[in-house]
Amino acid sequence: MEKLYRDAQIIIDKAIEANMPFQTVREALKNKQFTGNLHLLAIGKASWAMAKAASKELGGRIKRGIVITKYGHSLGDIPGMEIIEAGHPLSDKNTIAGTEKAVDMAQNLGEDDELLFLISGGGSALFEKPLPGITLEDIVETNSQLLSCGADIVEINMIRKCLSAVKAGRFAQICAPAKIFTIVLSDVLGDRLDSIASGPAAPNMSTAEEALAVVKKYSLNFNYKVMEYIAKETPKTLENTETVVTGSVRALCAAAAVTAASLGYTPYILCSQMNCEAREAGRIISSIARQIDKNEYSFKSPCALIFGGETVVTIRGNGKGGRNQELALSAAEQIAGLNNLIIFSFGSDGTDGPTDAAGGIVDGSAFQRLKEKGINLQTALNNNDSYTALAAINSLIITGPTGTNVNDLTVVLHAIET
Amino acid sequence: MEKLYRDAQIIIDKAIEANMPFQTVREALKNKQFTGNLHLLAIGKASWAMAKAASKELGGRIKRGIVITKYGHSLGDIPGMEIIEAGHPLSDKNTIAGTEKAVDMAQNLGEDDELLFLISGGGSALFEKPLPGITLEDIVETNSQLLSCGADIVEINMIRKCLSAVKAGRFAQICAPAKIFTIVLSDVLGDRLDSIASGPAAPNMSTAEEALAVVKKYSLNFNYKVMEYIAKETPKTLENTETVVTGSVRALCAAAAVTAASLGYTPYILCSQMNCEAREAGRIISSIARQIDKNEYSFKSPCALIFGGETVVTIRGNGKGGRNQELALSAAEQIAGLNNLIIFSFGSDGTDGPTDAAGGIVDGSAFQRLKEKGINLQTALNNNDSYTALAAINSLIITGPTGTNVNDLTVVLHAIET
Repeated sequence: MEKLYRDAQIIIDKAIEANMPFQTVREALKNKQFTGNLHLLAIGKASWAMAKAASKELGGRIKRGIVITKYGHSLGDIPGMEIIEAGHPLSDKNTIAGTEKAVDMAQNLGEDDELLFLISGGGSALFEKPLPGITLEDIVETNSQLLSCGADIVEINMIRKCLSAVKAGRFAQICAPAKIFTIVLSDVLGDRLDSIASGPAAPNMSTAEEALAVVKKYSLNFNYKVMEYIAKETPKTLENTETVVTGSVRALCAAAAVTAASLGYTPYILCSQMNCEAREAGRIISSIARQIDKNEYSFKSPCALIFGGETVVTIRGNGKGGRNQELALSAAEQIAGLNNLIIFSFGSDGTDGPTDAAGGIVDGSAFQRLKEKGINLQTALNNNDSYTALAAINSLIITGPTGTNVNDLTVVLHAIET
Repeated sequence: MEKLYRDAQIIIDKAIEANMPFQTVREALKNKQFTGNLHLLAIGKASWAMAKAASKELGGRIKRGIVITKYGHSLGDIPGMEIIEAGHPLSDKNTIAGTEKAVDMAQNLGEDDELLFLISGGGSALFEKPLPGITLEDIVETNSQLLSCGADIVEINMIRKCLSAVKAGRFAQICAPAKIFTIVLSDVLGDRLDSIASGPAAPNMSTAEEALAVVKKYSLNFNYKVMEYIAKETPKTLENTETVVTGSVRALCAAAAVTAASLGYTPYILCSQMNCEAREAGRIISSIARQIDKNEYSFKSPCALIFGGETVVTIRGNGKGGRNQELALSAAEQIAGLNNLIIFSFGSDGTDGPTDAAGGIVDGSAFQRLKEKGINLQTALNNNDSYTALAAINSLIITGPTGTNVNDLTVVLHAIET
């Protein structure tokens, strides 16, 4: 057991490390040659660290840089860069002011210029400028109708994008003819480029026809100007963009797999888009863990089964916890009494739900240890009180805030100890 | 796609075939040598077919046989066997009468005798005799208190067993010194021998101390005689028993794996005790399916991912469906647009929920085909209306009642078609 816990800690550390903003920018720039005059724009909650990394790697090559991040997320000056802090999750005056500076820079780029564009989570709120004729009131009214009509998040974003001068690929059009090299630290499952930060430099996958169908479907009532933009096609192809996603939940899974392999486990990445109810994920993952070494067609120990994603928690109780802790607690039941394996789940940002834990880690003794502390696992789950339960048996994962966010990782480690 | 559908049908057929009562008994008897005078007892919903198979394999060797099955489940005479039909799921007078005949036979077995004992699902209700001094009223009252106190199924069965003259290994004691060879067709996840038909010929794993703790935990109020039996230890070791489980959800998975391998797919049995919410199982299994061939650590196509178990459905709507259909419908969402794979899920008994379908089968076009029929997948799921939705796109699996029941099988088949 001790070795399993030691190995788990190594996997957690290495997976996060590989997805730190600094690391991902360095990785993405490794084989990249810039030929023109280089400008930089960084947006999102990790933009400061990403810009800092670019500054370190490329140094004096960057002629001018603009960094837009959330209030309190700048950690100091970066030579040659203007750092703007703005509202998140709600855009504010600083958002518009910062975005206008970026647009101004973009408009003045010529054929000999290049833009290094760094995008991280929160970029959608931190980078926004309405199209001409659209007011902040129009946007508030549009959002209000969208949020109350029953539309899903895909439909809401499809409409929202239409009103922005910088989203849905339009920012890339402003930069033309200059080339854009975009590095993405993704917090969106599946890494759809037109979804991450609403795709300022990515061709938009939804059409005007689809957006108009949403308006019809929910009988939305927008003014003339708003409707005019909804009916207008967004860029479907962009000639001047190149994008790499170096930090993402897929990269989190990959780093865990490489680390597990180096520690002697055969790694399997089972999925990187897990999005079901946390406690049910715990049940099925523990069912899979039970099956290891059961017959010729099951996974052979030592092995690491790796799941990436972002599960959800349906709140029913008033306890303290998070989705990773709830997954781990739920998983403890069906591995009760089994030796040779542990299951752990954590958020790469280091903060799972409204708690100071990143997640939870359980083994075959957890169920019994909870019982000895007078804690019924099902009762704790029903009260969404996974933090309290896991804390009682010393099964929380604590990393502190990590400075990155590429969603969650769940791992089963199995090894027959000798 | 056509080949995937053809292969799915072959896997469904072969997996069920390997777990038919007739087949499992023949398999179990293959290498078994009986040396004494052979008697037979068959209990459960599949007891007729199991006894018929034994009769065919062993013919005149069986001196006497008793078969207890559910009303309407006998399909004709079997030479040398007395066939009794009784109540299920509630025991009745015929249950007690049939069980007494079996006990009578068992009491008269000597050292030179052997008993071939065939157990299938429903055996717990179909084989019952209260201990001396316990009345049917005592059992009704005990059950009533247990069902209303909040005890879980493990706790309920722990107490129930204490009052039976034939459960919890006691029937094996009655048979001693004769040896018992038990063949089990299991409908219990994990195949715990003391759980299948309440373990008439299996050492009981729960102790008197644990049973008394349940009484205390829920402040149950039983009469003196009932309490006396609860405090009495059940058999913990049995010298005269040998048991083989030849039909079970594990065997269902194994048969699917062998068949898939013969069709060119690399099979993986991921779990055989899946017991989570059906729609969440669909979500996570489709997430796993999406990952196939994504990188060096994921499953390589062609492959078959196999899950066995018995999921549950929390009823929220008033539609028509079953757990396997709900799992398949849910899985359709996340594989939308993907080629090269199908996901299917079915109950081995051929009847999924209160429908005439065994389950459902979906591919990457199912989501779009539903849309074209005006069916919203999430709305159908929320209304538990999986049958209607899958029927509309010709995605039901129909086998008819199969005559066996070893729970459910879910399979992802992936092959890049050329």
